[in-house]
Amino acid sequence: MTDQINRVVLAYSGGLDTSVILRWLQDTYACEVVTFTADLGQGEELEPAREKALLMGIKPEHVFIDDLREEFVRDYVYPMMRANALYEGLYLLGTSIARPLIAKRQIEIAAQVNADAVAHGATGKGNDQVRFELGYYALNPDIKVIAPWREWDLTSRTKLIEYAESRQIPIPRDKRGEAPFSTDANLLHTSSEGKVLEDPWDEVPDYVFSRTVNPEDAPDTPEVITIDFERGDAVAVNGEGLSPASLLARLNDLGRTHGIGRLDLVENRFVGMKSRGMYETPGGTILHAAHRAIEQLTLDRGAAHLKDELAPRYAELVYNGFWFSPEREMLQAAIDASQDKVTGTVRLKLYKGGVHVTGRRSPHSLYSEKVVTFEDDQGAYDQRDAAGFIKLNALRLRLLGRRDR
Amino acid sequence: MTDQINRVVLAYSGGLDTSVILRWLQDTYACEVVTFTADLGQGEELEPAREKALLMGIKPEHVFIDDLREEFVRDYVYPMMRANALYEGLYLLGTSIARPLIAKRQIEIAAQVNADAVAHGATGKGNDQVRFELGYYALNPDIKVIAPWREWDLTSRTKLIEYAESRQIPIPRDKRGEAPFSTDANLLHTSSEGKVLEDPWDEVPDYVFSRTVNPEDAPDTPEVITIDFERGDAVAVNGEGLSPASLLARLNDLGRTHGIGRLDLVENRFVGMKSRGMYETPGGTILHAAHRAIEQLTLDRGAAHLKDELAPRYAELVYNGFWFSPEREMLQAAIDASQDKVTGTVRLKLYKGGVHVTGRRSPHSLYSEKVVTFEDDQGAYDQRDAAGFIKLNALRLRLLGRRDR
Amino acid sequence: MTDQINRVVLAYSGGLDTSVILRWLQDTYACEVVTFTADLGQGEELEPAREKALLMGIKPEHVFIDDLREEFVRDYVYPMMRANALYEGLYLLGTSIARPLIAKRQIEIAAQVNADAVAHGATGKGNDQVRFELGYYALNPDIKVIAPWREWDLTSRTKLIEYAESRQIPIPRDKRGEAPFSTDANLLHTSSEGKVLEDPWDEVPDYVFSRTVNPEDAPDTPEVITIDFERGDAVAVNGEGLSPASLLARLNDLGRTHGIGRLDLVENRFVGMKSRGMYETPGGTILHAAHRAIEQLTLDRGAAHLKDELAPRYAELVYNGFWFSPEREMLQAAIDASQDKVTGTVRLKLYKGGVHVTGRRSPHSLYSEKVVTFEDDQGAYDQRDAAGFIKLNALRLRLLGRRDR
Amino acid sequence: MTDQINRVVLAYSGGLDTSVILRWLQDTYACEVVTFTADLGQGEELEPAREKALLMGIKPEHVFIDDLREEFVRDYVYPMMRANALYEGLYLLGTSIARPLIAKRQIEIAAQVNADAVAHGATGKGNDQVRFELGYYALNPDIKVIAPWREWDLTSRTKLIEYAESRQIPIPRDKRGEAPFSTDANLLHTSSEGKVLEDPWDEVPDYVFSRTVNPEDAPDTPEVITIDFERGDAVAVNGEGLSPASLLARLNDLGRTHGIGRLDLVENRFVGMKSRGMYETPGGTILHAAHRAIEQLTLDRGAAHLKDELAPRYAELVYNGFWFSPEREMLQAAIDASQDKVTGTVRLKLYKGGVHVTGRRSPHSLYSEKVVTFEDDQGAYDQRDAAGFIKLNALRLRLLGRRDR
Repeated sequence: MTDQINRVVLAYSGGLDTSVILRWLQDTYACEVVTFTADLGQGEELEPAREKALLMGIKPEHVFIDDLREEFVRDYVYPMMRANALYEGLYLLGTSIARPLIAKRQIEIAAQVNADAVAHGATGKGNDQVRFELGYYALNPDIKVIAPWREWDLTSRTKLIEYAESRQIPIPRDKRGEAPFSTDANLLHTSSEGKVLEDPWDEVPDYVFSRTVNPEDAPDTPEVITIDFERGDAVAVNGEGLSPASLLARLNDLGRTHGIGRLDLVENRFVGMKSRGMYETPGGTILHAAHRAIEQLTLDRGAAHLKDELAPRYAELVYNGFWFSPEREMLQAAIDASQDKVTGTVRLKLYKGGVHVTGRRSPHSLYSEKVVTFEDDQGAYDQRDAAGFIKLNALRLRLLGRRDR
Repeated sequence: MTDQINRVVLAYSGGLDTSVILRWLQDTYACEVVTFTADLGQGEELEPAREKALLMGIKPEHVFIDDLREEFVRDYVYPMMRANALYEGLYLLGTSIARPLIAKRQIEIAAQVNADAVAHGATGKGNDQVRFELGYYALNPDIKVIAPWREWDLTSRTKLIEYAESRQIPIPRDKRGEAPFSTDANLLHTSSEGKVLEDPWDEVPDYVFSRTVNPEDAPDTPEVITIDFERGDAVAVNGEGLSPASLLARLNDLGRTHGIGRLDLVENRFVGMKSRGMYETPGGTILHAAHRAIEQLTLDRGAAHLKDELAPRYAELVYNGFWFSPEREMLQAAIDASQDKVTGTVRLKLYKGGVHVTGRRSPHSLYSEKVVTFEDDQGAYDQRDAAGFIKLNALRLRLLGRRDR
Repeated sequence: MTDQINRVVLAYSGGLDTSVILRWLQDTYACEVVTFTADLGQGEELEPAREKALLMGIKPEHVFIDDLREEFVRDYVYPMMRANALYEGLYLLGTSIARPLIAKRQIEIAAQVNADAVAHGATGKGNDQVRFELGYYALNPDIKVIAPWREWDLTSRTKLIEYAESRQIPIPRDKRGEAPFSTDANLLHTSSEGKVLEDPWDEVPDYVFSRTVNPEDAPDTPEVITIDFERGDAVAVNGEGLSPASLLARLNDLGRTHGIGRLDLVENRFVGMKSRGMYETPGGTILHAAHRAIEQLTLDRGAAHLKDELAPRYAELVYNGFWFSPEREMLQAAIDASQDKVTGTVRLKLYKGGVHVTGRRSPHSLYSEKVVTFEDDQGAYDQRDAAGFIKLNALRLRLLGRRDR
Repeated sequence: MTDQINRVVLAYSGGLDTSVILRWLQDTYACEVVTFTADLGQGEELEPAREKALLMGIKPEHVFIDDLREEFVRDYVYPMMRANALYEGLYLLGTSIARPLIAKRQIEIAAQVNADAVAHGATGKGNDQVRFELGYYALNPDIKVIAPWREWDLTSRTKLIEYAESRQIPIPRDKRGEAPFSTDANLLHTSSEGKVLEDPWDEVPDYVFSRTVNPEDAPDTPEVITIDFERGDAVAVNGEGLSPASLLARLNDLGRTHGIGRLDLVENRFVGMKSRGMYETPGGTILHAAHRAIEQLTLDRGAAHLKDELAPRYAELVYNGFWFSPEREMLQAAIDASQDKVTGTVRLKLYKGGVHVTGRRSPHSLYSEKVVTFEDDQGAYDQRDAAGFIKLNALRLRLLGRRDR
């Protein structure tokens, strides 16, 4: 805290916590604060954030509000979807994938306004602090980073509220008490964790969900949709071409209606502890299933299996905050090199929380009815070849068997 | 075919195809045939197979009928479940995992009756021929293998029926025509492929499913169950201790009722082509979800992530038929070394085709509310540690950033 | 053999064996033979191959002799060197890497002369048949492939000589008897195997080596050289800029003199057996050591470790003949994405069979004396950060320790 | 530093630095110090450490001096050698592998003397602090750890010497000035780093080496030796059965004489920076080569390739200090499961810095001259099998080729 800070770019949501941080930065560092508020599809009005920032003395030219939805989906969500990345086999990485983009914009703004520091509102126990800060440092090794939650003494809700009151920061009525859980939202997902979710044996209460209907309340009739892919990326729903963000929003609507994409997970944080979270990833869950389905038809086995072996590592890197790292970029290069012909259409049935692939077709299909058929294949495949194939695959096992018996 | 065969152990189902094979072996090799029929939970009467074999001249002491259900689940399905193995991200390997056990018993019987050969009824295009034969050769490098479908000229249904008629082999009425698809079943799953399933764009017709109700016809009320695990293996359902096979059967009933475990997949066969299959794995799908859930609580991150990276390789080995191989055994050793504390209870909700984990608890839980809590953790975790953690993780990225800008 | 062949492109060395094959193809298939002889740096005159081909009735316009040395090193050896590929930890893949290029040229010539088949002289027990034919099929799925050694009945040296005599094929005096071992050579290496090498306990006799002096006979004075790299590829030796093939030739000379690059290996062939080979890879051994050294300075840890984990897979693919496969191309994309800054100079000492790196420098070095120094680093690194780093890395182990004691 | 410490177990070498630490602990924490000095084969007298400790007021029953050489080699070096572990492709992990054993003994002694803390003399920039402390925490999650170099203000040599003088700590004449480099030694290796080694372009000066003669000064005549292995571990040299530590010592003598095992490396530390080190691992280098050679003969390809893919991860874990982690133990389980038949004899030639395998034999050899021979194999291998093998391996590439042209 001894470092002299002149100007800091704060990732600012406009909510109580980051408003307290804004004031605390002004108080503690006697520095100029630049606010950055991103629309990543979290579904909140952003203009109130501008008003609040201005009220707290931020210069108009230092209030940055950006709609990053298309960039978010196109340059972060889509590349990750190409990888079929699932953290610990299940989690679609909705929070993780948003952090690098926020970090990148903060660093860009810092360059633009000549700021020497950046700040974020993530706590000291979570993964997000790591993701933000690895992003900051990777993009500007000399930037100063302020993480108020790790520095200040506002260690309880009561102290935070007192601080807000003492600084005339408006406190929404529902923020006075402890929230029963904490959330993060963007176009890809909403996550919830903490408090009522902390016992991993307790069922997640209904009121925690905000992005999906309960499968039991979803329509009794399935809905069948199609998704078109081009070179690994979804480009149309039900035949209608859509931009990345619009497409994901469309799938979110469909997923919400049908109760798709809820996940109750106990996961391993990078900082070394286990936590329990509830994720809702309606559109992403559909997209993931559809991408796997179109790859089934268009990816060669060698490419598909290599992807499957690389995917856990890729997911771990994204989860841990290493988006801007050489190894993530190397894996992305390998993955992207496989997607050139991942083009075609997948048909899915959405029903009561489930996504069921019911068909897929592609102009670049590697599936050959002629070869696979149970009927006469007219010489496309010579069954006698299998004898030699098996014999040579067995040779080492036979030599082994002879030795070991 | 020039090899002299004295006695051959045939994997015999009692159906038309293997009955034709039985006779063809007698005709072609002038050898004695020993039949082996296994109960792997496929849900068929086995005594008719005995009668048929006797009718076709097999000596009573050469008709082997074994109930292998417990061995199958305990020694094959359960070890595989410990690995969370999914072939190509989705397939629970129901057919693949049964083949090594059948191969093993054939080789054991061959030793017992002093046979010099084994035979199976798998075709020359599929994976099962590979799985059977790699198993045979691994367990007895000098065994002779007869694969009639790769050798004979009964290359059409018509020729097969003609052959059967000419040898007085009884032909069930429904076997005269071409079946609309082909199936394989055991306690873990039923697979269907071929014919009506050959166009991967066409939806799987309703009549293909035999092990699960259509999710749309499943009960409108969810059913909540618990599964208890001990050292990685499921041991009880709803608190009732069950043997491996009984437990899987119980989960199959539950899965059937709720329409769980249907999978429409285009997969890559080891022999080099893509095929489209429909799998129904009701109990296995529940078990897989539950095992992942109990691991979430009881496996350390290092163990969990290593398992996730090894799982695709493990699944590929099982799929390709390398169960009896040093590398599968090495992976199993690694996996089993992680399961010692994978003990506890998982609660799941079954509903309309979906399996939803809603809670998990364990006497060996690594989840620490004390550490993770949003509330005051009384020093269990020092948030300032995170600063150093991030700084050193960032160091290489900063050095990189300095170099590259 | 029932296929009608009109015109076949034969990989033709001009030696006795491929001359017999040439005639056998004419005799057996009554087809036109096109010969293709490549200069890959094997160190043999190629014009005699032309004369022989003409003598055997090949049309002048059907005799192809290409100098492929630059293409070989630039497009095959160099990409592989970027991967630090070592098969089974030791083998620099000298034979494996040449086969795809030969296959590619054969397929190109086949298209040019409108041939419907290709043929090679590799035996049925080795890896080369696989490498050639996987290359052929990948580049032209409809090409017919003739592998005389798997087809004909010239199964002993005596029969081969008799066939040659009966067809007036000139037989060099030293080819009448059995060669004491068999070799393959190109600019990267010479391999020797068979006969006198078949007992893996017997030391390789001195007369087997052809590319390197015995380390014991090498100069008593070390020779110090430098190699310059640009973007992962060697571009100069001792400051002198050289094309890829010239550079490798230069390093071969140096390696030969100093007895560098001999390897006595028992390896696992793709076809399932173990074989024992002696490899001499003088220049390649130097290049491999130098590339690793320049990467030490210029690759980030994340990139370096990912490369190390991918390298065995990459090597296996090259060894097994899957150069033209999506998975090799994906790995190459990942590897190449890491090489952008692999630029600089390595100094090496060559002495009595050893290659010793003694220094490396780079304009893109990531090594920071300022950070690493034992002396005062003026704040480049805060040692207290290490405490937090260790604490959070230890957290999961502590939770584990608490549970398990 | 606010924690109250009653008794601390210090890893004590008897040298100046750890003597200063000893006194500093007494001064700073007013606690009782227990010294632990291990003989890991570093080649120093240990009794002077006892005398010094007593002189500094340590109770006789609190001075622990253990000969851990056999345990070190048997339980740490040998398991690691089974893995063929090389960090970053080259480094035999000589320092890394010693730390867990020291940590384990410190924790054991702490339990025995009822100490509440442990301390070590590693600096805040290196890997060793991480290795020690991860070991401590894994084995006793509640232990307090004191790392003086990260805490005190003796940040220069001058201050350290002043502190020593002010406390009457004897200062060896050669320790007054700055050492030109820093070393660590045990039975496996000696490492040197810092100061004169800090410029990675500068050749390592001759006086840095202590464990090996310069290859140029090694005997002009090669020495041929044999090493016998049983189940993956070396058990005899030149036919003489030796305990693990004695065997490694014997190989060290041989390696020293012949100038074997010098390595000049720029490596990536876990704490995020690059460092340059010189390692001398004479016996370990011979052992590594020999173990690979006996595996060539006795390991199946599947096991061998899986080991090669796991080895970089294993090495990284050992390097980073995760010896006592579930994932290292899982990998060890996999590796050990492969070593059952790794028994036999390897012959090596040692000459002027080089280790050259010249032969290997085993009662469990998988090498079959009968199968591999160029001569008539009497049906051990049917070359026609290769045709089918290739055809089916090529099938996916052909389907791909058809699609993509």
